[in-house]
Amino acid sequence: MDIEEVSTPALCADLDYLEWNLQTMAERVPGTRLRPHVKAHKMTQLAARQHALGHTGFTCATAREVLGLAEAGLGTDLLLANELLDPLRLSAMARCDARVTIAVDSEETILAAHAAGIDECVIDIRVGFRCGCEVEEAPFLADLARSKGMNVRGVMGYEGHAMGVVDLEKRQDLTHRAMERLLSAHELVGGDLITGAGTGTHLINTWVNEVQAGSYVLMDTAYTSQLDQPFKQALFLQSTVISKAKDFVVCDAGLKAQGMDHGNPTYLDGEIMFCSDEHTNIIPTTPLQVGDQISLVPAHVDPTMAKHEILHLVRGGKVVDQWNIDLRHW
Amino acid sequence: MDIEEVSTPALCADLDYLEWNLQTMAERVPGTRLRPHVKAHKMTQLAARQHALGHTGFTCATAREVLGLAEAGLGTDLLLANELLDPLRLSAMARCDARVTIAVDSEETILAAHAAGIDECVIDIRVGFRCGCEVEEAPFLADLARSKGMNVRGVMGYEGHAMGVVDLEKRQDLTHRAMERLLSAHELVGGDLITGAGTGTHLINTWVNEVQAGSYVLMDTAYTSQLDQPFKQALFLQSTVISKAKDFVVCDAGLKAQGMDHGNPTYLDGEIMFCSDEHTNIIPTTPLQVGDQISLVPAHVDPTMAKHEILHLVRGGKVVDQWNIDLRHW
Repeated sequence: MDIEEVSTPALCADLDYLEWNLQTMAERVPGTRLRPHVKAHKMTQLAARQHALGHTGFTCATAREVLGLAEAGLGTDLLLANELLDPLRLSAMARCDARVTIAVDSEETILAAHAAGIDECVIDIRVGFRCGCEVEEAPFLADLARSKGMNVRGVMGYEGHAMGVVDLEKRQDLTHRAMERLLSAHELVGGDLITGAGTGTHLINTWVNEVQAGSYVLMDTAYTSQLDQPFKQALFLQSTVISKAKDFVVCDAGLKAQGMDHGNPTYLDGEIMFCSDEHTNIIPTTPLQVGDQISLVPAHVDPTMAKHEILHLVRGGKVVDQWNIDLRHW
Repeated sequence: MDIEEVSTPALCADLDYLEWNLQTMAERVPGTRLRPHVKAHKMTQLAARQHALGHTGFTCATAREVLGLAEAGLGTDLLLANELLDPLRLSAMARCDARVTIAVDSEETILAAHAAGIDECVIDIRVGFRCGCEVEEAPFLADLARSKGMNVRGVMGYEGHAMGVVDLEKRQDLTHRAMERLLSAHELVGGDLITGAGTGTHLINTWVNEVQAGSYVLMDTAYTSQLDQPFKQALFLQSTVISKAKDFVVCDAGLKAQGMDHGNPTYLDGEIMFCSDEHTNIIPTTPLQVGDQISLVPAHVDPTMAKHEILHLVRGGKVVDQWNIDLRHW
């Protein structure tokens, strides 16, 4: 099918760029040193490609992602890099056909995981502004987990506050300071894993022994503004011009079709005026007619993926495959 | 089930408030003078309640909403208040078991609808900053549609730029000026319908003969800031505190669980720091512990509904029903 025949709004990825990104990352962060984060793409079919490239462990943000990967036979080594207290979801993860490790940062999260039958964890250290315990709390939590018979595999720390910083030197500095905390915690906790980092710090974070990057496969405008990124913008949102005024056009991909937390999407041949529920208004620099298809580039890949059921894979103007975005919701 | 037992993040509505909102609107804008917009709630089960209250016509933003209402036996009079060129979706709507009317604002949209077998339309007039033709174009488009044998039922104009304005006087003034354009167009086009307005203008827009309000049933913080609104905040996002730092807590409902285009959610007993993909950081004024459940109020109802599969109906601390959000996607 030609891409012009697809019903819009349609989330698409350039398959050549996607494969180039997969390959480039596999060379930069090979094998199990990369533990791809599936929260960015939420697709077992893409995870299977990452697995085939040697990245056999995965990072997850939700129980749904863990259970979906397990069902797809991709459960070699799954890390839920998020705190969870829900007994139903913890039990389902404990029973699923996968090696499951969970992040813990408090007595409550350790006891909940243990009670549900999860027997491996990492101690999540607060190196930024999200979850995680203080460095000095880490040994006590590790002791508690071990006293319950759990295997403490090491430490985790996600430098989320550094990830999107455009300036490389500033990003390096923030990462370095965050990782000093993580390494201090690791000295106290022990274990094989020092896991963290992401697309924004995948090369500059030389302190972790596992990189949890996910966005690199599809990319967004937030990451492409980092000039040190080698990855190509694979993801785009195909849209149809449905209305035309004197000075602007209206296309059919609005804020229900893309994440808005990082701002408006980008359109190469014009200026975005604003997005509403089902529409984006654009001042085009090259004239557009009603019925024309255009491609928008979303500002933030993760929440954009979470809004769609299907990703259309495009090569040479043809939709050559469709992947289910099957790891959505919680 | 007690609400504390529900897996979070969970989108919930207070059933008493929801019913109060339905009843209040049915008294203010009774019968078919209200053509509820289903884009706000995207649920056939809620649409059935609106239908039972006498609001037998519906407004839709997507073909999926039209087709879903038709399948649910709610197809008495469905208006797709949006331009559509997709031949597959237009044909499906033409074939479905419903009276379907479509908004058109150009030669292209009329010809596409006609070619697909849609035989009723309204001329969409640009009274704000979204779709719609100019007033002076309207009679030519009406003539074109009629020359194809289509029934032109009247005019539509949505004063979206007035809808969210907090100041009542300013909102009235913007609405008045927009509706002057709509009435001018109606004089040129004819037909029974003068359709527009929304929750923000449902009483002050005295020029339309149909009100397309949708948000009133569930509400959000954008609309509750309008002091003239009688509707109660029914929608909330139930979340669990999963991590605790010295000065803040982290809960498990982030920006994938709510629309962010109108800003952060509101939490009554604390200050929202920021939302990330799966988390919201809060500085609580009343101490919170890991495992505590809290309720956030989303800033924008429409995109929040579009992110969830199920709405939990809550009464007296119990989940008494669950409605599928079955009209999502396109």
